[in-house]
Amino acid sequence: MNGPVNLASAIAELDGPFRPLTVGSLNDYKVMVVRAEGEFVWHKHDDTDDFFLVLDGQLTIRLRDGDVALGPGELFVVPRGVEHCPVGDARVLLIEPQGTPNTGDDGGPMTAPDREL
Amino acid sequence: MNGPVNLASAIAELDGPFRPLTVGSLNDYKVMVVRAEGEFVWHKHDDTDDFFLVLDGQLTIRLRDGDVALGPGELFVVPRGVEHCPVGDARVLLIEPQGTPNTGDDGGPMTAPDREL
Repeated sequence: MNGPVNLASAIAELDGPFRPLTVGSLNDYKVMVVRAEGEFVWHKHDDTDDFFLVLDGQLTIRLRDGDVALGPGELFVVPRGVEHCPVGDARVLLIEPQGTPNTGDDGGPMTAPDREL
Repeated sequence: MNGPVNLASAIAELDGPFRPLTVGSLNDYKVMVVRAEGEFVWHKHDDTDDFFLVLDGQLTIRLRDGDVALGPGELFVVPRGVEHCPVGDARVLLIEPQGTPNTGDDGGPMTAPDREL
């Protein structure tokens, strides 16, 4: 069984920017925390939406047709197939299906291994 | 497309305790805010886990084998089939598959209609 998770404590376990840490599961989804610092990579997930909730800091999710600016307590779900590039300095709760790579179709050097709390 | 959601603004739209408001979707899941006030009902969801993240306040999720106490920034996923009863005074982010009734197998008078922001 998943235990209760304190997100601030989980964030303290992060080992670098844009390296998600899985803190729990919801059916076949992984619940993660991640730290954004600077610019990630443009990518998309053809098979899934992508859930972002800013816990603290400021995150901009760049889209090809405009930016979505998020502060603490603000969430945005990037629809499947939509190119996006997260930029900012923020701690974020992410939810995606198990097996979803953080870089989506990019698959470049910022692809992070799955890591669990 | 889902727009960005400010959770504090969404919470201001709640029309009573234990009456979830759907603020967005993640694939075939609904993302909701809800206010807990007092005691809900014992119930379980045989087909799905149940995601709780406390935004503010204090929520206890009673389980048959013990309580899980959650404060702001703490999450817990109740496994499918596990009886639980939320109790407290809290604002909470919930995620469940579309169509999941809030009262699970209880189906009693606290069953709330689906309502969207």
